[in-house]
Amino acid sequence: MKRQFVKDLKPGALVNDVFWCSRRDIKDRRDGGQFLTFEIRDRTGAMSAIMWDKIEDGITYIAEGSFCHVQGRVSDYQGKLQLTVSAVYPVEPVQVSKADFIPVSRFNPAELMSELRGYIGQIQNPWLQQLLKAFFDDARFAEQFAQAPAAVRVHHAWLGGLLEHTVMMCRLAVQLPGVYPEIDRDLLLTGCILHDIGKVREYTAGQAIEHTDEGKLLGHIVLGYQLVADRIRTIAGFPPELEKQVLHIILAHHGEHEFGAPKTPKFPEAFLVFFLDYLDSRLAIFRSAIEKNPGVRWTEFNDYLETDVYIGEPPDKVQ
Amino acid sequence: MKRQFVKDLKPGALVNDVFWCSRRDIKDRRDGGQFLTFEIRDRTGAMSAIMWDKIEDGITYIAEGSFCHVQGRVSDYQGKLQLTVSAVYPVEPVQVSKADFIPVSRFNPAELMSELRGYIGQIQNPWLQQLLKAFFDDARFAEQFAQAPAAVRVHHAWLGGLLEHTVMMCRLAVQLPGVYPEIDRDLLLTGCILHDIGKVREYTAGQAIEHTDEGKLLGHIVLGYQLVADRIRTIAGFPPELEKQVLHIILAHHGEHEFGAPKTPKFPEAFLVFFLDYLDSRLAIFRSAIEKNPGVRWTEFNDYLETDVYIGEPPDKVQ
Amino acid sequence: MKRQFVKDLKPGALVNDVFWCSRRDIKDRRDGGQFLTFEIRDRTGAMSAIMWDKIEDGITYIAEGSFCHVQGRVSDYQGKLQLTVSAVYPVEPVQVSKADFIPVSRFNPAELMSELRGYIGQIQNPWLQQLLKAFFDDARFAEQFAQAPAAVRVHHAWLGGLLEHTVMMCRLAVQLPGVYPEIDRDLLLTGCILHDIGKVREYTAGQAIEHTDEGKLLGHIVLGYQLVADRIRTIAGFPPELEKQVLHIILAHHGEHEFGAPKTPKFPEAFLVFFLDYLDSRLAIFRSAIEKNPGVRWTEFNDYLETDVYIGEPPDKVQ
Amino acid sequence: MKRQFVKDLKPGALVNDVFWCSRRDIKDRRDGGQFLTFEIRDRTGAMSAIMWDKIEDGITYIAEGSFCHVQGRVSDYQGKLQLTVSAVYPVEPVQVSKADFIPVSRFNPAELMSELRGYIGQIQNPWLQQLLKAFFDDARFAEQFAQAPAAVRVHHAWLGGLLEHTVMMCRLAVQLPGVYPEIDRDLLLTGCILHDIGKVREYTAGQAIEHTDEGKLLGHIVLGYQLVADRIRTIAGFPPELEKQVLHIILAHHGEHEFGAPKTPKFPEAFLVFFLDYLDSRLAIFRSAIEKNPGVRWTEFNDYLETDVYIGEPPDKVQ
Amino acid sequence: MKRQFVKDLKPGALVNDVFWCSRRDIKDRRDGGQFLTFEIRDRTGAMSAIMWDKIEDGITYIAEGSFCHVQGRVSDYQGKLQLTVSAVYPVEPVQVSKADFIPVSRFNPAELMSELRGYIGQIQNPWLQQLLKAFFDDARFAEQFAQAPAAVRVHHAWLGGLLEHTVMMCRLAVQLPGVYPEIDRDLLLTGCILHDIGKVREYTAGQAIEHTDEGKLLGHIVLGYQLVADRIRTIAGFPPELEKQVLHIILAHHGEHEFGAPKTPKFPEAFLVFFLDYLDSRLAIFRSAIEKNPGVRWTEFNDYLETDVYIGEPPDKVQ
Amino acid sequence: MKRQFVKDLKPGALVNDVFWCSRRDIKDRRDGGQFLTFEIRDRTGAMSAIMWDKIEDGITYIAEGSFCHVQGRVSDYQGKLQLTVSAVYPVEPVQVSKADFIPVSRFNPAELMSELRGYIGQIQNPWLQQLLKAFFDDARFAEQFAQAPAAVRVHHAWLGGLLEHTVMMCRLAVQLPGVYPEIDRDLLLTGCILHDIGKVREYTAGQAIEHTDEGKLLGHIVLGYQLVADRIRTIAGFPPELEKQVLHIILAHHGEHEFGAPKTPKFPEAFLVFFLDYLDSRLAIFRSAIEKNPGVRWTEFNDYLETDVYIGEPPDKVQ
Repeated sequence: MKRQFVKDLKPGALVNDVFWCSRRDIKDRRDGGQFLTFEIRDRTGAMSAIMWDKIEDGITYIAEGSFCHVQGRVSDYQGKLQLTVSAVYPVEPVQVSKADFIPVSRFNPAELMSELRGYIGQIQNPWLQQLLKAFFDDARFAEQFAQAPAAVRVHHAWLGGLLEHTVMMCRLAVQLPGVYPEIDRDLLLTGCILHDIGKVREYTAGQAIEHTDEGKLLGHIVLGYQLVADRIRTIAGFPPELEKQVLHIILAHHGEHEFGAPKTPKFPEAFLVFFLDYLDSRLAIFRSAIEKNPGVRWTEFNDYLETDVYIGEPPDKVQ
Repeated sequence: MKRQFVKDLKPGALVNDVFWCSRRDIKDRRDGGQFLTFEIRDRTGAMSAIMWDKIEDGITYIAEGSFCHVQGRVSDYQGKLQLTVSAVYPVEPVQVSKADFIPVSRFNPAELMSELRGYIGQIQNPWLQQLLKAFFDDARFAEQFAQAPAAVRVHHAWLGGLLEHTVMMCRLAVQLPGVYPEIDRDLLLTGCILHDIGKVREYTAGQAIEHTDEGKLLGHIVLGYQLVADRIRTIAGFPPELEKQVLHIILAHHGEHEFGAPKTPKFPEAFLVFFLDYLDSRLAIFRSAIEKNPGVRWTEFNDYLETDVYIGEPPDKVQ
Repeated sequence: MKRQFVKDLKPGALVNDVFWCSRRDIKDRRDGGQFLTFEIRDRTGAMSAIMWDKIEDGITYIAEGSFCHVQGRVSDYQGKLQLTVSAVYPVEPVQVSKADFIPVSRFNPAELMSELRGYIGQIQNPWLQQLLKAFFDDARFAEQFAQAPAAVRVHHAWLGGLLEHTVMMCRLAVQLPGVYPEIDRDLLLTGCILHDIGKVREYTAGQAIEHTDEGKLLGHIVLGYQLVADRIRTIAGFPPELEKQVLHIILAHHGEHEFGAPKTPKFPEAFLVFFLDYLDSRLAIFRSAIEKNPGVRWTEFNDYLETDVYIGEPPDKVQ
Repeated sequence: MKRQFVKDLKPGALVNDVFWCSRRDIKDRRDGGQFLTFEIRDRTGAMSAIMWDKIEDGITYIAEGSFCHVQGRVSDYQGKLQLTVSAVYPVEPVQVSKADFIPVSRFNPAELMSELRGYIGQIQNPWLQQLLKAFFDDARFAEQFAQAPAAVRVHHAWLGGLLEHTVMMCRLAVQLPGVYPEIDRDLLLTGCILHDIGKVREYTAGQAIEHTDEGKLLGHIVLGYQLVADRIRTIAGFPPELEKQVLHIILAHHGEHEFGAPKTPKFPEAFLVFFLDYLDSRLAIFRSAIEKNPGVRWTEFNDYLETDVYIGEPPDKVQ
Repeated sequence: MKRQFVKDLKPGALVNDVFWCSRRDIKDRRDGGQFLTFEIRDRTGAMSAIMWDKIEDGITYIAEGSFCHVQGRVSDYQGKLQLTVSAVYPVEPVQVSKADFIPVSRFNPAELMSELRGYIGQIQNPWLQQLLKAFFDDARFAEQFAQAPAAVRVHHAWLGGLLEHTVMMCRLAVQLPGVYPEIDRDLLLTGCILHDIGKVREYTAGQAIEHTDEGKLLGHIVLGYQLVADRIRTIAGFPPELEKQVLHIILAHHGEHEFGAPKTPKFPEAFLVFFLDYLDSRLAIFRSAIEKNPGVRWTEFNDYLETDVYIGEPPDKVQ
Repeated sequence: MKRQFVKDLKPGALVNDVFWCSRRDIKDRRDGGQFLTFEIRDRTGAMSAIMWDKIEDGITYIAEGSFCHVQGRVSDYQGKLQLTVSAVYPVEPVQVSKADFIPVSRFNPAELMSELRGYIGQIQNPWLQQLLKAFFDDARFAEQFAQAPAAVRVHHAWLGGLLEHTVMMCRLAVQLPGVYPEIDRDLLLTGCILHDIGKVREYTAGQAIEHTDEGKLLGHIVLGYQLVADRIRTIAGFPPELEKQVLHIILAHHGEHEFGAPKTPKFPEAFLVFFLDYLDSRLAIFRSAIEKNPGVRWTEFNDYLETDVYIGEPPDKVQ
């Protein structure tokens, strides 16, 4: 079991654990010999490594990227941490837990999935409930959905990110009809649950979260459209008007053309799905920016928020 | 008591009630005589009027715009309704109810104000509660706030619109900490209640809702900033850090510079006040667009939403 | 057979033919009587009409819009032509030719369809040819395609417009591989032929060219995607890589997100389909702007081109 | 007294003077020992430093950033200058002159302040003169104003920058009424003098020019608004109309919403203050870009001007 | 001599003077006869006219637009002024003064030209002075320059507008080197004088100010470039470096590509010419907006300024 | 003759050939000695070099950038290739072929020029043919044109790039009149041939392709305008209308103001020249992006295309 993670390593630390090693270079030393540089990585981050001796082991075992057991000591080189490696041993992929190397949601996926099934159970419209059950009673789909990340980076870029993001939106969505009685609760909830469903095909999560070819060529909006349109065809008698409403919500959930939406929202429930999607992802970016900057009053500049974030003293401390 | 309202008048209707008359023109008839045209208006809309005979009364009583008792018949002239006026009588301003001539909220202001006081009562942070009470325990301010419109047009452009908009945002705001525990509920609620407070000075509501000079030269964002900064000065010991947080929320609640915000949101609660403000106003525009287009599947093009709105069959009908 | 068309009517002309009549209003005359106004329309344009006498016939036959035989004389009213109507007679829809009332392509559809089948026949890639034949050997689809307009307005907004636009793009496309040998001719031609295929479901052409509900809620890009994806499923063994390429071209043919493309072009053939689509539609707008302004050196300002268009003397006249 | 400044140090130079030292890192040497890297800085720039021996002194005296007396020699490392340090000695803050470490205006602040008081003396409108004197007869405020920078970077980012920028604008402003008699000279001058007054609270200048919390959360536009509004309240009888005009100029002096102006200019004097502010800052950027690139015909690309700047031969040389 | 101008005509006024008549329509009367409508116009504005009797004279004399002596009375028709015409007489073009029909500068052109020659005389650089004299010692050019408008609409859209605009910029320009000693006064003045010189070919001023073909196809920026490049060729030995500087100023004086500048300013004098051009035109738009709205506190919305303009009480009245 | 080119050098390679050496730095070694770093470059790319011994030769021969014969071995330093230099010898410029150091077109310039003359020969309009011959019968101009690059970077940034780009556009242009008979073939071809002609003065190609001063201050659009306007003046009787058309095409060929066009296209041929220019340059960027990324399914992100490019399996492989 892995005990040492990149983000916890401090200068001077002795390292003795498994990492994903890649980007290996062989370089000339001034004295005529050679040395190795490579990168170690796990789900918490990456660090550069340098190896002066016994480089044959490094050349052999890190040839094209692989899991290795690495021993060495952490130093600080030009303001960045660096691992000076003394020894490298091979490790079998079966010996490593993927969860140590790809980030995962901090929530329990079984609990979130159970909560999601609860929302589905509340839906009154029989066609919408049947549609959602067609998806989530399919164990293979449910497993994919529970595992999928919601992004490659930016927000919810971890295993289970899609489920986490979807459930947060449902928690918000169920509050809205109480404030705005004209909102159709069933249609809104269905839209929230299905809006990002195409992400089960947009990403892969092998040794890293990456886009699939169809993710890049077709995109999760259209892939999600197709998944839902295909399921609806399996439900005899599904009302065509309702079908168009559900599919429109998926196509419009990026809100504006410039964000890649082929359609802009044309009715309130479609607008709200766009809105809750935006709210939850923005808050996740704020949360992440603040967590990455402990002990300061202002975070560094955040590219997605286009600002640095104020932390200051928490409001309950400023009394 | 006024019984006939512009929006209910149909071709052929006999009209006999009080209207606000303005835009009077005297025109030549081909036969050498003259005729009058003017406009009648109440809180539900406006209609053009034409008067062929006894125009002396019209010239006398409508000279510069005033309330008149008007008699006539509605016809359809080039696709628009027109009132052919047979007689005009003067009416004293004291005889008319302003509420018949300026639109008002469909909600009971006393109930909304009571609900708002309830939110204030829930606030735990003593400084924020003291600040809010400094405003709403001031009967004159509370009266102004309850009467103020939230806009000249677009959304909540009626007496009581500010209160209505504020309470809707509070209803949404109190749900959020349950979903996002990191949110400071007190700061968020305070931001929602105070964000548009400058509108009590941005608009007047005499015979129409209009901008004041300071509304146009300084704007409700900065006027609201000043109102809050002034109240805070009356509270000895108010924490400076908290003061900056509250004032920032007001300055940032338009979200982006291009919408007139002198600051963009720098922490989650500021972002959420912008967000809830946007959500409630957008939904109000959807609601209004749909109400103005009864009995159709698609509304006409809406300039604020930049789309026509789909009504279709309501989802609960399409089963 | 209809002989008189709106665009040919001049002041003083005596009119005696069938038109589509709508927008009827009944108005009061100053002398106490009433008169009628309505609109006459055919495939060449629209004109307002006014009827002073025997208005009972007008009221009866034009009640909710319908085809009528109209008699009258054309005058010039405030700079616009107006028909003063003396008599109106009912006409049965079966007696009128839809082609007189909805604009049609100036090209022979059979010839264009034959040319299009020629391009399909030239395709070497067996999967792409099979896909195209799956569409165009389906007689019902081929008929829909040949009839469909390419737009509600702007360019190719007539019956047969889609076919005309598609063939023009093919004529351009077959020239490109001679200049750029790296271009895949089969993929480019297939993209041109299928790029706008969703328009067979985006528009209806009853008494006017209008959007369907699914046209407005889902759009021709995604509808076209679905039509092609569905046909591909009927072809056993269709290569998945090729499928993604064809579908990407459809999704990317608007070129940029801001024009409603869910994907931007990711390889040269996708870029070229976007490009040829843009070229042919722009040239059609230039052509239409010039045709509508005979005998002048500069057209009026054109909203789509964002300029007035220079006609001047044709270059072969300026020697 | 400091004699050696970073921008004058050339490769080979022997260094023996006081610098602000920070960003200290301890690194491993290949031979098992350690070395130090840090940064030296003064008002003219920064340079990286490296220390191979006697690093204990460096570790002791540069622990968290402080003034040190540094000895060493300048070399060129990978295209950048680097100081190889042989010895480090502690220095007391009281021994250093802040003016050596934060850039200052090249103008004499007393002269500029005297010129500014001259403009105030010329103002005819008694209320405006009284307002300006309320500020500048307050010795503490005048001192703050004379010290404040006008920016953290870009233009006038030095002690005294605000005063320098303000006086330049006054020199331009007094010329305008001669060209445009409709301009109110007093209002324009007052606007120029007060437009950036909030910058006395937006920045601090300790060991570097930085934003204050209220600078980032509220901004100099609103802080300036408040400073002026507060002073006006101390002047009994100040005309409300004039108050709104002055405050509007401050709120509008960034010209457009996208530059953070809560209001756009609504009368000519407000527009001119925006304009002169923009002119003076642009010219300062041109001047700085040219000064940093001596002896070339074209400067490097300048991010603020979005171009490289042409120097060429000075016009008086090209005859 | 013309005594009655459109902008002074009030309802009820008896009209008896010369106007430019155009846009003539012949319309049917309900009683079987016909009537005429047309437009009267002079340098101060336009008004619609209607003629019930003796229309043969109107038909004869206004056939294609021409100067006519018109008699009638002004009425108010649907909120707009209208002239009811009783008689129309022909007028020879030689009898009318063009200055009555095209707006002219309020300044004395001879005085402005004299002032401009003064600036030229101050120029020290012999090449620049020679270049300017090559233009302004050419009597035919000087006449064209003095007559040219600076625009078709928006600002300085009158005969002499170019000269007026140019001189205003010179008045500003000569002040700048006193504030910014690094500015080359001669180059700046030359740039101001020549920047819009292409407008002598961009517009014609026959019966209205209109674009020429070369104005629309080539534009005053490039036409001005060519005029200056051609003059420089006539000056033996003109320094090539200086030539490029002068020509660059002309090409860059619109400041940004989006305003049609083929080059953005690359040195301070080029930037300042753009800047002074912008300042003078903006102030002219403010002035015009205020003049068109006498007696109000706020003008109507102005499309070029994108705001309504505050007039309020003049500052010298608010004491 | 040069045999070794930068882009072919692999780690471990022994180098012994001529390169352009520049950016020389002298640095201190830890042991008190010094070493050299510099850059070697040829038409295929650049690589950094380091020299530990005999640095006096390097200091002497590379002093300010020059051609040198270099000997050494390639290594991999921190992920980038680096040449460790053992010896440097001087080389005379006359001994080196410029074509080894500046990239050239892959096409045969004589063949392309011959093809271009063929297009000129096809032109029917005598004035346009005379104009083109005036350019291309001028041997010195023809030589310049054949040598000129079309850009400093991005596309066709090599000797002969302008000719190559121009001929590609002609190949496209001659196809268009067959599809759109309303297009004037002669005017379109002339526009294609002349549109970028100003580039013969915008760039120099000494030891690198760089902008000239007039290229940066005036730009190829206006320089091309002037070249054509000057040639036309030498042709007695050239029709003025035709002149304006040709010159407009040059001024408008960037299509939109934001791309630096002083005019937007005002007739179809002008629009098409813009269009073909855009098409050919975009395809060249696609081609270059794909060539630089051999053996991958997706290229790296391309700044000009604003996307990564899909390569995948070629369509003819996916059957």
